[in-house]
Amino acid sequence: MKITGTFLDEISHDIPHQNWGREEWDRDFGYMKAIGIDTVILIRSGYRRFITYPSAYLQKQFGCYEPPVDLVKMYLELADKHGMQFYFGLYDSGHYWDTGNMQDEIDANRYVIDEVWRQYGHYKSFRGWYLSMEISRRTKGAVEAFSTLGNQCKAVSNGLPTFISPWIDGKKAVMAASAGLTKADAVSVQEHEKEWSEIFEGVRGAVDAIAFQDGHIDYHELPEFFAVNKKMADKFGMQCWTNAESFDRDMPIKFLPIKFEKLRLKLEAARMAGYDKAITFEFSHFMSPQSAYLQAGHLFNRYQEYIAGLK
Amino acid sequence: MKITGTFLDEISHDIPHQNWGREEWDRDFGYMKAIGIDTVILIRSGYRRFITYPSAYLQKQFGCYEPPVDLVKMYLELADKHGMQFYFGLYDSGHYWDTGNMQDEIDANRYVIDEVWRQYGHYKSFRGWYLSMEISRRTKGAVEAFSTLGNQCKAVSNGLPTFISPWIDGKKAVMAASAGLTKADAVSVQEHEKEWSEIFEGVRGAVDAIAFQDGHIDYHELPEFFAVNKKMADKFGMQCWTNAESFDRDMPIKFLPIKFEKLRLKLEAARMAGYDKAITFEFSHFMSPQSAYLQAGHLFNRYQEYIAGLK
Amino acid sequence: MKITGTFLDEISHDIPHQNWGREEWDRDFGYMKAIGIDTVILIRSGYRRFITYPSAYLQKQFGCYEPPVDLVKMYLELADKHGMQFYFGLYDSGHYWDTGNMQDEIDANRYVIDEVWRQYGHYKSFRGWYLSMEISRRTKGAVEAFSTLGNQCKAVSNGLPTFISPWIDGKKAVMAASAGLTKADAVSVQEHEKEWSEIFEGVRGAVDAIAFQDGHIDYHELPEFFAVNKKMADKFGMQCWTNAESFDRDMPIKFLPIKFEKLRLKLEAARMAGYDKAITFEFSHFMSPQSAYLQAGHLFNRYQEYIAGLK
Repeated sequence: MKITGTFLDEISHDIPHQNWGREEWDRDFGYMKAIGIDTVILIRSGYRRFITYPSAYLQKQFGCYEPPVDLVKMYLELADKHGMQFYFGLYDSGHYWDTGNMQDEIDANRYVIDEVWRQYGHYKSFRGWYLSMEISRRTKGAVEAFSTLGNQCKAVSNGLPTFISPWIDGKKAVMAASAGLTKADAVSVQEHEKEWSEIFEGVRGAVDAIAFQDGHIDYHELPEFFAVNKKMADKFGMQCWTNAESFDRDMPIKFLPIKFEKLRLKLEAARMAGYDKAITFEFSHFMSPQSAYLQAGHLFNRYQEYIAGLK
Repeated sequence: MKITGTFLDEISHDIPHQNWGREEWDRDFGYMKAIGIDTVILIRSGYRRFITYPSAYLQKQFGCYEPPVDLVKMYLELADKHGMQFYFGLYDSGHYWDTGNMQDEIDANRYVIDEVWRQYGHYKSFRGWYLSMEISRRTKGAVEAFSTLGNQCKAVSNGLPTFISPWIDGKKAVMAASAGLTKADAVSVQEHEKEWSEIFEGVRGAVDAIAFQDGHIDYHELPEFFAVNKKMADKFGMQCWTNAESFDRDMPIKFLPIKFEKLRLKLEAARMAGYDKAITFEFSHFMSPQSAYLQAGHLFNRYQEYIAGLK
Repeated sequence: MKITGTFLDEISHDIPHQNWGREEWDRDFGYMKAIGIDTVILIRSGYRRFITYPSAYLQKQFGCYEPPVDLVKMYLELADKHGMQFYFGLYDSGHYWDTGNMQDEIDANRYVIDEVWRQYGHYKSFRGWYLSMEISRRTKGAVEAFSTLGNQCKAVSNGLPTFISPWIDGKKAVMAASAGLTKADAVSVQEHEKEWSEIFEGVRGAVDAIAFQDGHIDYHELPEFFAVNKKMADKFGMQCWTNAESFDRDMPIKFLPIKFEKLRLKLEAARMAGYDKAITFEFSHFMSPQSAYLQAGHLFNRYQEYIAGLK
């Protein structure tokens, strides 16, 4: 299964920045293209006070800092240049994580969606929306938020597609800023199916694809969970993507590039389950030949050998 | 605001060593010079049993290991060569951190100051002293230690300047060897002003400049805290420097180079507050083109673009 | 004291993979050779479901994944090519760590030893066995396991040598996936001698060399512990090796290359104690000029200067 999309991890949450300028990003889009990536997804347009484009609204309402560069503009120009599709990731105010109240996220993004479409909707490469809230089964209010925002995204943009990328509440679902690597109370595949069926039902029509993060369960659990995900996606009329994490969740350093063998296991599981598309989090830190993590360049080589063997 | 000084993080406390030899250090001083750094500060001349120069006294009294290289000599020679000022950082026995008793630090350094000035005081680049104890508001005995040692430094060296670099007890003031990134009981700006006014008062005359570390408070808190720091420095007749941390405190990996946007926010806040000088912790790991952390080279480039824009 | 052996850390437990292919490994064996390494030791042939060679048995009995490459074959071929000795590390099912029962480890490896000798015993470079369980003083059942497996290894292979590499239960003996760096209840040198004398006695005849990991005690404790280790090895007729860890246990990032000065202290202590051989964990991440950790290349240079000075 080939990876055809990648997140762009600006603004980052837990991955240190590489401090790239336009030149490095331009080159990186070229590297992506070389292994068949045709879709880039801005992971979020802002997180708390850091934002990717100079939104007058977010600066005023949320005290966001004026960004030194308009990353949205830059990414769209580069996507145009390299013939790629760009998905815009919504804003995350952080208020939900602090207060448990999803309303601020909805309110902020209702404005952001309009603002962004007005300013950037004319770019040829603007081809979809990423509802950026990363949720799992117990995220209160997520269904309403996804439904409201997904519908608005589609309404302003003549129906451009939307997708979400939640996590499976498996044994590796621990906080990045914790020392441990696993937890005891992992979800069973039965609970997963029951709870997510309700969520799928609730967001039907507003969300076109679901790309579960693939890193929170053990490798031998992949086939069972992936089969259920595909079954649910089919039932509720959505595309089933995999978000193949290219970083390693099994190591005390959080996080460096994944061992190729693990990535292969995950991609093979997605292929076996008949998934529609594979995207990754994310190319530029963990798979790029110019990544600051040199393991990434070797992963790029191993992955290239792998896809050459698929033909 | 331009960075004109950097710490030299040997002996390191929590940043892995790069294992550079003289050739790499020589080249690095050249890189520093290229972006306007004229001051290098040895972060400490020793920490527990590891020391930077072959001190007979420290080897005998504290069981320190014979260092493989005389780093003090090397740094002074390179500072002479590159036309830079060198500040010598005092010895940290670690006893204070173990026992809460500052007397050992005072006793050890009273000897070290004499020894070092005798051995290295003739170098042209030996231009100041760094009182290396990193303290915050609740460090018992710090006022007396700084006062005693600062006065001695100045007395032996014909009044060469001294400075300290404490931390603000903000929400990010957590141990490096802990998993978390923030704590709940952060200091308020009012408490900060009250407590530090007392400390400033106590070290007056013995300390010429104070360079608060800028990484323990949130970015939007910078203006308020920086204004208070400048007000206190002015009141007590000290220079107000900023210690602009070039590593990122917001990430689970402790620590990699900072996102340029964050460094810029901090430097801009120091400029707005009318600070006298900016130094960084530290160039060689986090901003150098030859750093083992390749993000550092990109930060160097972004920073160069920034200071070019200041002109 | 020169390092003449290194582990090959595949399958890794807590060090992120570099994703090297055959070309990189071939080059790395060359780098090893250049500094006098003549012995490579596969750290383990498998850990839980990840394995290094396509063992039909392990895939069937333990649900192991089919490995993308036969690493055992590749390492043996490269060891043949470069004129090095290869030690094979046994399989670790992980069951002991989960259940405290050593029997599964014994049962699995009794089969693995036969299988591996049958498939790979004809390689010229196959010169020994590494009993890969990393134990310390309180590892229940370890004596019987080492004794049983060591004897079997020797029996099938016409007496090829075996070794173990336990850790000293010192103050730095903490879990990799914990935030802290030290613990309070470290072993005393007297307890160490008493407890390990019993273990040595129990494995006598089945284990030819013991290579204690050198990183769990403080640097000034090295001489005392090393003297005891050598005394015990002599008493029970074993070779005394040191496993010189080339990564730094004193830093919050777990783990990057060690400061050269620390490695030197450890090697000097082994030399003073009259140790027979030094191996390292491990060259390819922490000392190689092509490591993803660029500090490793500088450590390689510092180490080269050091051994040049020994002549």
